Amino acid sequence: MLRDDITTAIRRALMQELAAVGYGRLSIEAVARRAGVSKTAIYRRWSSKLELVLEVVAAAATSKLPALDTGTLRGDLTLLFQVVAHALRHPLASQIIPDLLAEAARNPTIDQTLQQVLRARQQEIGGRLISRAVRRGELPADTDPDAAVDLIVGPLYWRLAIARTPLTPGYLGTLVEAVAVGLGAKSTLPRQREAPVSG
Amino acid sequence: MLRDDITTAIRRALMQELAAVGYGRLSIEAVARRAGVSKTAIYRRWSSKLELVLEVVAAAATSKLPALDTGTLRGDLTLLFQVVAHALRHPLASQIIPDLLAEAARNPTIDQTLQQVLRARQQEIGGRLISRAVRRGELPADTDPDAAVDLIVGPLYWRLAIARTPLTPGYLGTLVEAVAVGLGAKSTLPRQREAPVSG
Repeated sequence: MLRDDITTAIRRALMQELAAVGYGRLSIEAVARRAGVSKTAIYRRWSSKLELVLEVVAAAATSKLPALDTGTLRGDLTLLFQVVAHALRHPLASQIIPDLLAEAARNPTIDQTLQQVLRARQQEIGGRLISRAVRRGELPADTDPDAAVDLIVGPLYWRLAIARTPLTPGYLGTLVEAVAVGLGAKSTLPRQREAPVSG
Repeated sequence: MLRDDITTAIRRALMQELAAVGYGRLSIEAVARRAGVSKTAIYRRWSSKLELVLEVVAAAATSKLPALDTGTLRGDLTLLFQVVAHALRHPLASQIIPDLLAEAARNPTIDQTLQQVLRARQQEIGGRLISRAVRRGELPADTDPDAAVDLIVGPLYWRLAIARTPLTPGYLGTLVEAVAVGLGAKSTLPRQREAPVSG
């Protein structure tokens, strides 16, 4: 294998091992076996299990979001919810991040790295989607981006990653409207049957 | 120790061990040591580590919520958010549940138990708080309780358990208003500086 191929194989094997056994039971030996490389090949690149996990997970979790600029707040929210709903089906969100969040309470280095990853995500969403909506006059000028991101990301995360309730037809559209109105956007729904969060 | 005292000591020791090392690394031996009892005392009550963990966690997580009936949707939401914000500071929510959620992807029995616990919680909130607001005429009659619970619980869970952003002064009040309006309640805020989710 070429050098880059080896690094890629190790990254992929680590994600699979993390999903399969979790951080606590993960061994460098099992990652090496799964990747088809020697333990030395791993230790040449990362000094410890902790460093390996944090670097690979941070890289995977901060892969760029699509631009999400559709011209309206509701359009941007619809696109974001589709991306998030898809991402939450990946083991990174359903197994690896929850496992590391639990681990973070015991390990300050994991805690700090996760915080940085999540904060960057928050700012990416808050700073772009919200500020564009404010510029367009769809949201109040004094909208708090952090609180807005909670309202945008929280419901879908709760439903798919925690309560694990499947999406029902029309759910995402209803959520877009509820979140937009909750954020302070004007309602665009005169008809009662399309009222926010009702079925 | 009396029989009941032993059971209580085991339950408490289990929660502490789960928070400290997680499900994967938890041993019955360590729980027994922490509780000051013999391993036999544990195996007399629960047949396995899995059974012990599920029974104790389910019991802790389904302890009754306060009645939450203040007479208005916004009053009920305010009280619920205070209870949830407090509960999310407990290791059960910040460490044990995330750890078991990660474990659930590998273990169908854990998955089913967590689903039952979370679903009961969902229905307790949805069935009571939402149906009272509908009866009062504060929310549309066709409000979907599941979707409403996502909007109610999600933002605070995301902020405190995942993003771990501290609460800022006025945050809970702003969230109450954003969620109430998002659910379809009439806005009670004529003044712009108190607009939903703005600081």
